[in-house]
Amino acid sequence: MTDMVEESPLHRLERLLLEDKSDELVAFIEGLNSHEVVHLMSHLKRDEQTELLIRLTPENAASLMEELPEQQAAEIVEDMEAADAAAILNEMPSDEQTDILWELESDEAEAILSFMDPEEAADVRRLIDFDPDTAGGLMITEYLSFPVNMKVGQVIDELRRRKEEYAKLHIKYLYINKLDGTFSGVLQIQDLLMSDYGTPISEIIIPDVITVPMDYQLDLLIDFFHTHDFYGVPVVDAHHKMHGVVLRKDVLEALADQASYEHLESQGIVGGEELRTMPLLQRAKNRLSWLSINILLNLIAASVIAFHQDTLSSVIALAVFLPIISDMSGCSGNQAVAVSMRELSIGAVKSGEALRVWMQEIGVGLINGLTLGLLIGLAAFVWKGSLMLGLVVGGALAINTIVAVSLGGTVPLLLKHRGIDPALASGPILTTVTDMAGFFLALTFASIAISHLSGL
Amino acid sequence: MTDMVEESPLHRLERLLLEDKSDELVAFIEGLNSHEVVHLMSHLKRDEQTELLIRLTPENAASLMEELPEQQAAEIVEDMEAADAAAILNEMPSDEQTDILWELESDEAEAILSFMDPEEAADVRRLIDFDPDTAGGLMITEYLSFPVNMKVGQVIDELRRRKEEYAKLHIKYLYINKLDGTFSGVLQIQDLLMSDYGTPISEIIIPDVITVPMDYQLDLLIDFFHTHDFYGVPVVDAHHKMHGVVLRKDVLEALADQASYEHLESQGIVGGEELRTMPLLQRAKNRLSWLSINILLNLIAASVIAFHQDTLSSVIALAVFLPIISDMSGCSGNQAVAVSMRELSIGAVKSGEALRVWMQEIGVGLINGLTLGLLIGLAAFVWKGSLMLGLVVGGALAINTIVAVSLGGTVPLLLKHRGIDPALASGPILTTVTDMAGFFLALTFASIAISHLSGL
Repeated sequence: MTDMVEESPLHRLERLLLEDKSDELVAFIEGLNSHEVVHLMSHLKRDEQTELLIRLTPENAASLMEELPEQQAAEIVEDMEAADAAAILNEMPSDEQTDILWELESDEAEAILSFMDPEEAADVRRLIDFDPDTAGGLMITEYLSFPVNMKVGQVIDELRRRKEEYAKLHIKYLYINKLDGTFSGVLQIQDLLMSDYGTPISEIIIPDVITVPMDYQLDLLIDFFHTHDFYGVPVVDAHHKMHGVVLRKDVLEALADQASYEHLESQGIVGGEELRTMPLLQRAKNRLSWLSINILLNLIAASVIAFHQDTLSSVIALAVFLPIISDMSGCSGNQAVAVSMRELSIGAVKSGEALRVWMQEIGVGLINGLTLGLLIGLAAFVWKGSLMLGLVVGGALAINTIVAVSLGGTVPLLLKHRGIDPALASGPILTTVTDMAGFFLALTFASIAISHLSGL
Repeated sequence: MTDMVEESPLHRLERLLLEDKSDELVAFIEGLNSHEVVHLMSHLKRDEQTELLIRLTPENAASLMEELPEQQAAEIVEDMEAADAAAILNEMPSDEQTDILWELESDEAEAILSFMDPEEAADVRRLIDFDPDTAGGLMITEYLSFPVNMKVGQVIDELRRRKEEYAKLHIKYLYINKLDGTFSGVLQIQDLLMSDYGTPISEIIIPDVITVPMDYQLDLLIDFFHTHDFYGVPVVDAHHKMHGVVLRKDVLEALADQASYEHLESQGIVGGEELRTMPLLQRAKNRLSWLSINILLNLIAASVIAFHQDTLSSVIALAVFLPIISDMSGCSGNQAVAVSMRELSIGAVKSGEALRVWMQEIGVGLINGLTLGLLIGLAAFVWKGSLMLGLVVGGALAINTIVAVSLGGTVPLLLKHRGIDPALASGPILTTVTDMAGFFLALTFASIAISHLSGL
């Protein structure tokens, strides 16, 4: 019996990297789930990451890389020798290859491509021109196709003969081409099983299969798979020649990423995700680019207060309530933004229906504005014993809540209608306008009632 | 040629509902994609929604209901006659049935179940006890299983004989049981095709298939499908008896929903999603429940200002900067929250690693704090010509930015570590603490330098 304490996965990995036991290293990596892989890779230094990937077989390294966020995978690839990177990329499906190379500078990508298997490289070169959020960028090119003039027995014989070679492919759906090379239809593997050897496959294929063009957008693909319970959809060019399959699972993964990126964007993490393994200066700079616009907007909003300094200096108690009005209006408005973003994404509302949404928000604004106004007015009254102060701050918050939910509900639709990303721009626009309106309302009301408020 | 203007889909639907042309109605609904369905249903009144569903065939109504968000589908079902609702639910897969009935009061669900097909109802009764975010709640029970002692030819004959009946099932994977009823393995349909009729299926099944228990959590399932490129995973009970299959696509859909709900929660839409078709009072109340906690937290934060009224009344210019400090610190902190939430969800960081994250944030805080402090300090100096005012507000924002990113980065981890939902609680905690700290810093610095600031 040894009295060793249990070794953490990270220490174990670092030890295995130092020792010369590649078998044990491979076994260790294969035993990890995807969260554990991401976690360990996020804790290794760059040179340790590279070292690890080189020590694994290219197949193992590829399946490890597939677990990582694309940006992180791309950064690691960037730091590797092109030949090593190419060996790993060779083992990935075409959509993952393209996603990673897409993140690199074109000369780096070219260097890696020159070391890759020529067939794989040719595929990638063709795919990399497509936007990753289109059918051309999302499709895989690993699928099986047969000409339509074959018989069931011939297809089965061919499948049996090339069993090894096809083992990695998903052969539950076979794609059938006409003799001129254009796409004809889909053959489900169970229909081979249910038919006699002599049956022409033309009799059992599903002929009128929906296809999508290469530039079909992710949004439309999400919608497509929501409507159709298909495993994948064939992608065809303008001549109806098939080039790949977009799989439902890849679209659903892209959907989850999209929801997650939208959240990041709305909180000011702009231009892709930030991982804390990225260089400090890059992280700080990315965040600052958004913050510096915000501070400018904040200064503009605060200028409303600057114009009312006289009122404020006679009613200093107001200074306590201005940040509250600003923050609470922001909260109410952001709730409405979030509901609009959700309704836009599921299709419950279209970007042209701002008026309809406004009608639906105004009621909420009225109820919540009155309630919040009452609460803060009461707090002001209890604190200073001035009914007028309560009326001023309560009234300002009540009206500004209506302004905030009206804007919050409609701004995402209006932005989307104009082709501006609502996840990114709604928040800053909303808070600037509601801050200005809130400060203006509170200070104007106070200046009107100044005779009842002076000295508070 | 007629000179009719084009009819909008909504008007067309309303007209078809009024006229007695069910065929045309069915054809119209079948031609819509899922976004169009959601959009139209969100624009109909409740009685029109019910009318539409009754006029369609149960199959059509079921596939329409499957496009809608669960809460909306449940609300519509709630308002229907139990017998009509049961007819529609009969046509849905077991996971969708359960999801909808789960949203209803138990007596309403029971009434509908009593009208349903007894077999379907028995399935649902068994499933409805499972949390929808576990394998038991996510699995479908529509799958094919065979005993392990069959031969390839027998399975193929059976499949051919019951072709019609199995047409709706996904038969690309067959699930094989031992003779005692426990789960044995998976048979891929292509392996039937590749084998001779006399081969015992025990020789060609994949025997050591990973299974998950009924209470396996969604998070673990997401991780599972990220690691394993499987179509689905069998769900077994404590006796290793199989009860259903969790499909990859259902887990990915749940993942996208989760990302979207987390976003809603972080913006103060709590307890499931809000759709604007919900009753006004319910919407207002749900939003208020979160806002009223926030206004309380805001009052607490603002009390810091109240305690420094004297300082503020001698340096009224400060009142302009307090809302800016509050808002900008909130922005910086929320960026760090968003990165932490993302890193938690992909596994790059674990909830126990707050110290590590803090070390990674402090650098960003320093750089961004200094930059933002400089900017706002400069603005203050330019406006009032007072270097000291610039130092006070710039210094306060610089230090408070460091506080904000430190908290923003670590609070989600600390909350998760304690089992509290970080999407919900991080924001309010962050803004309250950073507001207090920001106000305190600015007002304390000002009171120290009061002799240089008075009258500004």
